[in-house]
Amino acid sequence: MGRVDQLASERSKAQFDVDEMKIVWAGSRHAYEISDRISRIVASDPAFRKDNRAMLGRKELFKNTLRKAAHAWKRIIELRLTDEEASRLRFYVDEPAFTDLHWGMFIPAIKGQGTDEQQQKWLPLAYKMQIIGCYAQTELGHGSNVQGLETTATFDPQTDEFIIHSPTLTSSKWWPGGLGKVSTHAVVYARLIIDGKDYGVNGFIVQLRSLDDHLPLPGITVGDIGMKFGNGAYNTMDNGVLQFDHVRIPRDQMLMRVSQVTREGKFVQSNVPRQLVYGTMVYVRQTIVSDASCALSRAVCIATRYSAVRRQFGSNNDGVETQVIDYKTQQNRLFPLLASAYAFRFVGEWLKWLYTDVTQRLQANDFSTLPEAHACTAGLKSLTTSATADAIEECRKLCGGHGYLCSSGLPELFAVYVPACTYEGDNVVLLLQVARFLMKTVSQLGSGKKPVGTTAYMGRVEHLMQSRCDAQRAEDWLKPSVILEAFEARSARMSVACAQNLANFANQEEGFAELSANLTEASVAHCQLIVVSKFIEKLQQDIPGKGVKEQLEILCNIYALSLLHKHQGDFLSTGSITSKQASLANDQLRSLYSQVRPNAVALVDAFNYTDHYLGSVLGRYDGNVYPKLYEEAQKDPLNDSVVPDGYHEYIRPLLKQQLRNARL
Amino acid sequence: MGRVDQLASERSKAQFDVDEMKIVWAGSRHAYEISDRISRIVASDPAFRKDNRAMLGRKELFKNTLRKAAHAWKRIIELRLTDEEASRLRFYVDEPAFTDLHWGMFIPAIKGQGTDEQQQKWLPLAYKMQIIGCYAQTELGHGSNVQGLETTATFDPQTDEFIIHSPTLTSSKWWPGGLGKVSTHAVVYARLIIDGKDYGVNGFIVQLRSLDDHLPLPGITVGDIGMKFGNGAYNTMDNGVLQFDHVRIPRDQMLMRVSQVTREGKFVQSNVPRQLVYGTMVYVRQTIVSDASCALSRAVCIATRYSAVRRQFGSNNDGVETQVIDYKTQQNRLFPLLASAYAFRFVGEWLKWLYTDVTQRLQANDFSTLPEAHACTAGLKSLTTSATADAIEECRKLCGGHGYLCSSGLPELFAVYVPACTYEGDNVVLLLQVARFLMKTVSQLGSGKKPVGTTAYMGRVEHLMQSRCDAQRAEDWLKPSVILEAFEARSARMSVACAQNLANFANQEEGFAELSANLTEASVAHCQLIVVSKFIEKLQQDIPGKGVKEQLEILCNIYALSLLHKHQGDFLSTGSITSKQASLANDQLRSLYSQVRPNAVALVDAFNYTDHYLGSVLGRYDGNVYPKLYEEAQKDPLNDSVVPDGYHEYIRPLLKQQLRNARL
Repeated sequence: MGRVDQLASERSKAQFDVDEMKIVWAGSRHAYEISDRISRIVASDPAFRKDNRAMLGRKELFKNTLRKAAHAWKRIIELRLTDEEASRLRFYVDEPAFTDLHWGMFIPAIKGQGTDEQQQKWLPLAYKMQIIGCYAQTELGHGSNVQGLETTATFDPQTDEFIIHSPTLTSSKWWPGGLGKVSTHAVVYARLIIDGKDYGVNGFIVQLRSLDDHLPLPGITVGDIGMKFGNGAYNTMDNGVLQFDHVRIPRDQMLMRVSQVTREGKFVQSNVPRQLVYGTMVYVRQTIVSDASCALSRAVCIATRYSAVRRQFGSNNDGVETQVIDYKTQQNRLFPLLASAYAFRFVGEWLKWLYTDVTQRLQANDFSTLPEAHACTAGLKSLTTSATADAIEECRKLCGGHGYLCSSGLPELFAVYVPACTYEGDNVVLLLQVARFLMKTVSQLGSGKKPVGTTAYMGRVEHLMQSRCDAQRAEDWLKPSVILEAFEARSARMSVACAQNLANFANQEEGFAELSANLTEASVAHCQLIVVSKFIEKLQQDIPGKGVKEQLEILCNIYALSLLHKHQGDFLSTGSITSKQASLANDQLRSLYSQVRPNAVALVDAFNYTDHYLGSVLGRYDGNVYPKLYEEAQKDPLNDSVVPDGYHEYIRPLLKQQLRNARL
Repeated sequence: MGRVDQLASERSKAQFDVDEMKIVWAGSRHAYEISDRISRIVASDPAFRKDNRAMLGRKELFKNTLRKAAHAWKRIIELRLTDEEASRLRFYVDEPAFTDLHWGMFIPAIKGQGTDEQQQKWLPLAYKMQIIGCYAQTELGHGSNVQGLETTATFDPQTDEFIIHSPTLTSSKWWPGGLGKVSTHAVVYARLIIDGKDYGVNGFIVQLRSLDDHLPLPGITVGDIGMKFGNGAYNTMDNGVLQFDHVRIPRDQMLMRVSQVTREGKFVQSNVPRQLVYGTMVYVRQTIVSDASCALSRAVCIATRYSAVRRQFGSNNDGVETQVIDYKTQQNRLFPLLASAYAFRFVGEWLKWLYTDVTQRLQANDFSTLPEAHACTAGLKSLTTSATADAIEECRKLCGGHGYLCSSGLPELFAVYVPACTYEGDNVVLLLQVARFLMKTVSQLGSGKKPVGTTAYMGRVEHLMQSRCDAQRAEDWLKPSVILEAFEARSARMSVACAQNLANFANQEEGFAELSANLTEASVAHCQLIVVSKFIEKLQQDIPGKGVKEQLEILCNIYALSLLHKHQGDFLSTGSITSKQASLANDQLRSLYSQVRPNAVALVDAFNYTDHYLGSVLGRYDGNVYPKLYEEAQKDPLNDSVVPDGYHEYIRPLLKQQLRNARL
């Protein structure tokens, strides 16, 4: 890290064992060691340089991504990396690319929806990247509503083929990553039509480009959908548009694990449960929650380090200005985000466990926990991605003006992150799904059906509807039981209130639509309770390392109490706590900020991010911000010459009052 | 607008006179006519095309901006535009450029801080653009804290000159727009040093570049600070870095209206009141509030029109999906922003009046209202810019996935807007200034000093501390008096609570620091009250046009009640309203959404934005979104070829398993 360490005095203040915290953050010593080793391999390889990304034009940027993807694959082979290591390497390369969709969507779709035969045929090709695939679901006019897709796959019994067709402009596939310029194949979702009858949306493996010259096959029109938000960011990805003009594929390229079409054109449902689809959703959304904690922790790491470096106003005795991290307004905005990073990390870890649990149950034909697991992951996907998107922008603002420079890393982090609020289920649509589940849970409370998992607290609804919060002094708000009960009461009461309001409507669907804003608030309350309770559960485990558990307890309390303050209206309007108690919680929160302050820099060091991965001059490990900002600025193409291109045509005529004659 | 109008049926639903609303929005018939005419001149001139901005590399982008700025100046001269018209033309060109700082900061600084003599010398040169100037205050290490600037201006009595010098890296001027590549001159803020004594920060006119060849003058190092957030966006501006190595300027280039240095090196304060500086701040911040309503209304216009075009889920009887604008969750997010656009427009209009009023009083040596006006504009700058930045991103999300495409216009609008939260006073720092003023106001309540202007309600503090909200039915929340009293009670009680908490601290400054988060919340409450009350005042005026006033009343109520819901915690914890009343307000809000729904598209049409200015495929006047999205995508450089550049080097070797031999 060189000789400079502007943050050394901050690091010496830490009251806990940072190395042990790194292991807690990583999830295990094994995970820590892999991450640490792989991140260093990437950081030290100049081929993975990314500091010039914001300056590249689209074509140059994209070509560079192709180069990096190929280089990554080469290194994966050369170093004989395991799947886990290979996945970490792609993660630390930190550049969206077609490979994300190939590994993350194309292969899982075939695994999840293909028959054994189909898997045997296609997976080996995909694993070796002899074909490159993407996932073509979303259409120009159809996003959230999958059942509204327009692309058709019409069975032709004469030739034993499906005819894939885009009947309208709005039926064009639009958005799939990797589709525009790279993928040779796609899993395409289309309405299955047999003998004029519509059997709904199914998946089909379709070859898009020739494996000889990469040209689109006959009947296929494919291209890129154009620039997206931000410099660099997702513009490294060829999100694509795709139109089919009666493209024929063999019948056996329909993914047939769940439904089949026979040679005779009969539509058959297999005995494989359709719920499997939900299992896959649980998996994908769990990875999104885990990504949220990564993105959030990066932003927090940058903002925390720079807040310790940056000084403004109010000089100490030595005439030096105050570190901005010492201002309560800064702490009040930053520390809840630091706490959220840890909270999301742990709830993501728990979701990973939940997915394993659900999968095992599915294999044993036990579907009992699936609806709850599905609602829970949908809600947590929504909650964590929305919070993370907002938090990245807040961290940018916490860095003052310099956060607006691309070299701070924060603009690109924001731009590359925000789609997570929309893809794999729009966050508001997901909250409404959670709300439906909550309303169902409430309605069944009388029936003796016991709510399970994260809704178990609803079983104590009678108690929660009339319980009174115990907190009498600020310190009472440090008790997990007090916090939990307040969050449970708030959530239960909001759900019950919604259910009661719904009951006033003759038509339940109309009522649900009319009250949907309130319903999403109830969902948020429920999901926040889950995050708080999983953080508390984590702290009931044995956590080694000097001071590690104590720091996590502080963060857990900050997470909970800052939410309590932010959503005071919910807690007060439901009578879950009193105004006096809200005020005590806020007093306690301020005191927690003082406790976390000396540990803040060490707590972000525990994320163990290399400067390469962090990609921020403001967040440098050594805190040597200003000289490096200056250095970065010099690299801008505009600084190639002191007198800018355009001076003679446009500036000089202006200054010399010769514009009248100029051609512009 | 062509033959297509997908939104015609929406427009036919409107229950008010859109043309009259256009005049209300513009402020006057005169303002409307100028805006309408000038915006069409810009829109119809291909030289002002901006739809390719996101795709241009930095150099090309910047050169293009120079061309547009020169072309704009040429047109201004050719068309003999008035100052007002010229300013509108620059506004509708909608591309940040050095001219913004030249007209908006350099000239006003000389006008405000220069002596008559200095004005006579410099202003004619600046008006004709024979010199181009910028405003060099912020330094690499010093933003908010102007008193911490490090650049020095040392008086040399021998030569009757000042020596401008950058003693450290952190003293480099950093951020000034127009500085990097274009400005020939700057108003530079530096510590005045005479005979070793520091007289604080003063302004100096310094020539930076030769008027012959545009090269930096000796001792001057100047350049661009590099890429900023977003595609296009502020990258059209040459925000600059500037270092002085003992640069000498004549003594008469210190701006001497307020302070002078004599030939003998004596520092003299003139009898011009220093408060004049605050008058300028009131002016600049008032324009920022007005800009907020522009940016917000653009985003809302795009999101509203596209929400009417876009359909998802839930088919009607005819099998067509539901317009997303019909969903309550969409209305609940969108309509408060539509209402905010109008609210900010009217409070901006009022601030313009306030500035005139303050200026007239200053000329009559009446400083009595200045502190209140200063606090009020600082607070409103903070409130409106923070709300607008968040709202633009919310509008982007309200457009679903397509909002992420640059062709939606929203990414660039966000990226170009967000600096408003930081420049001209960081929004949190400004809220703390408001809080100081509020605490002072509260502390003087007993002394008989009557609070003025926007703090007048504090004079009724005894009543407000114990008043009870009257609302008993949802409809009661339509009464301006009920709304006003609730907002006044909330604000007064929050300020008083802060003052009481502060009194518990022995050291007031320490108390202020400790409670700063609460204090900013009290400031927000106060500022929201101002916006609500100015909207209500506006509605007490005579407003002609069928249905116009009714629509504005609905928007005013939506603005107030949506804030009330969002900040329920404040209203409840201060006991300003009861839970039951909060719930009634929310019921009323839902019913207001239904009332505004049929008028939504017409209400954004009233902003009278051309498709050029709006710059959004999703927000097109004719609603013909999908064919145009497709068309825009084709223009991406990546679509120049079907097989992408890089295929032979990086994709083919991957597919053909020949990576091992490849050089990457």
